[in-house]
Amino acid sequence: MKKRVAVLCFSGGMDSTTLAAYYRDAGYRLGLLSFDYGQRHGHREIEAARDVAEYYKADHAVLDLTSINFPGSALTDPEVDVPDGHYAEESMKITVVPNRNAIMANIAIGVASAYKADVVALGIHAGDHAVYPDCRPEFVRALRQCMVHALKGFHTPALETPFINISKTEIATRAALLDAPLHLSWSCYKGGLLHCGTCGTCTERKEAFKNAGLTDPTEYAA
Amino acid sequence: MKKRVAVLCFSGGMDSTTLAAYYRDAGYRLGLLSFDYGQRHGHREIEAARDVAEYYKADHAVLDLTSINFPGSALTDPEVDVPDGHYAEESMKITVVPNRNAIMANIAIGVASAYKADVVALGIHAGDHAVYPDCRPEFVRALRQCMVHALKGFHTPALETPFINISKTEIATRAALLDAPLHLSWSCYKGGLLHCGTCGTCTERKEAFKNAGLTDPTEYAA
Repeated sequence: MKKRVAVLCFSGGMDSTTLAAYYRDAGYRLGLLSFDYGQRHGHREIEAARDVAEYYKADHAVLDLTSINFPGSALTDPEVDVPDGHYAEESMKITVVPNRNAIMANIAIGVASAYKADVVALGIHAGDHAVYPDCRPEFVRALRQCMVHALKGFHTPALETPFINISKTEIATRAALLDAPLHLSWSCYKGGLLHCGTCGTCTERKEAFKNAGLTDPTEYAA
Repeated sequence: MKKRVAVLCFSGGMDSTTLAAYYRDAGYRLGLLSFDYGQRHGHREIEAARDVAEYYKADHAVLDLTSINFPGSALTDPEVDVPDGHYAEESMKITVVPNRNAIMANIAIGVASAYKADVVALGIHAGDHAVYPDCRPEFVRALRQCMVHALKGFHTPALETPFINISKTEIATRAALLDAPLHLSWSCYKGGLLHCGTCGTCTERKEAFKNAGLTDPTEYAA
């Protein structure tokens, strides 16, 4: 029997690495899409994505969106510093790249339709909801409606977000159960040699392992 | 007073050239976004887009999406021929690039939000509805919902499609009234030296000028 195919938006972070483990465990062939949108941690993220893709011997493409300019976000604008602190704080709003998930998800939907994949999946989770509007359930519902209209009469994959209502801690737990290679994954927004340990996403990563009662495989600078 | 800004998905074809004329006439500053997604007529389209942008002395960016693969469409797959015939025929479905408008519109929405533009606009019209699902009113409504959720708490432009209920003939008429430089625009899917005159979009272009009772400024090969 032909394997079912899942196309994943795949940053090489904790969430999408666990997502890859989830679909691999369910017997899917994986098509992993990573995006270079000029994020300052892009070289580290994409390196991690390649490592995880290789670990799973998955199809992997790095899509170059660097010709698009997003001024004003700490992730893409060298004039704006990455804030330290807790992931859910108001100060983290400066890390938003407007419409980023809608852009990446719609590219994944187009590719999944062209390749007649069964599923297109995003690794968004409950902890993303506070700061990132394009990670909330109401966004995903609207995106799904948009997809159904855009692909009417053409191959339409199922849009899935299996982690949307669970916490980062629960993702760490599931990753452990699924043997996801989180030691290869990358989170830090600053993109140095090591995870900084103080930016919003490092703080969130640390807490997730701690609260799940798991050993954190990450080496932090601080 | 600061000029209002409109960000346009801008192919350099008849519809988006008339759209540029429409917003320029309404006093907007124009931000024109063209997309290179590997379409076989891309070099001619983008050349036309540059010419029209220069004509209007508008801000213009060509966004490179060529790292994304869309197999199976006559516009992007060298193995698939561009069909001749009428634009609204079933045979034209092979020219669909799945989710193309959702991808381009969402990039334009992200850029418009980052630059705090007032409007983001698409030149889709009633003649597109038969073959291209991502040009229909129900798609635009769903896209607008998706945008509102994705940008909640951030700058949200108005999503406008002023031509969505008018025909290509009516676009030709409006272009004449607005002095739009249609002689600079490019339609043909085949992307030769001249418009082929026989593919779906050439057929539609010819008919629009003829039915509007206007002189067609285009030189056709056939």
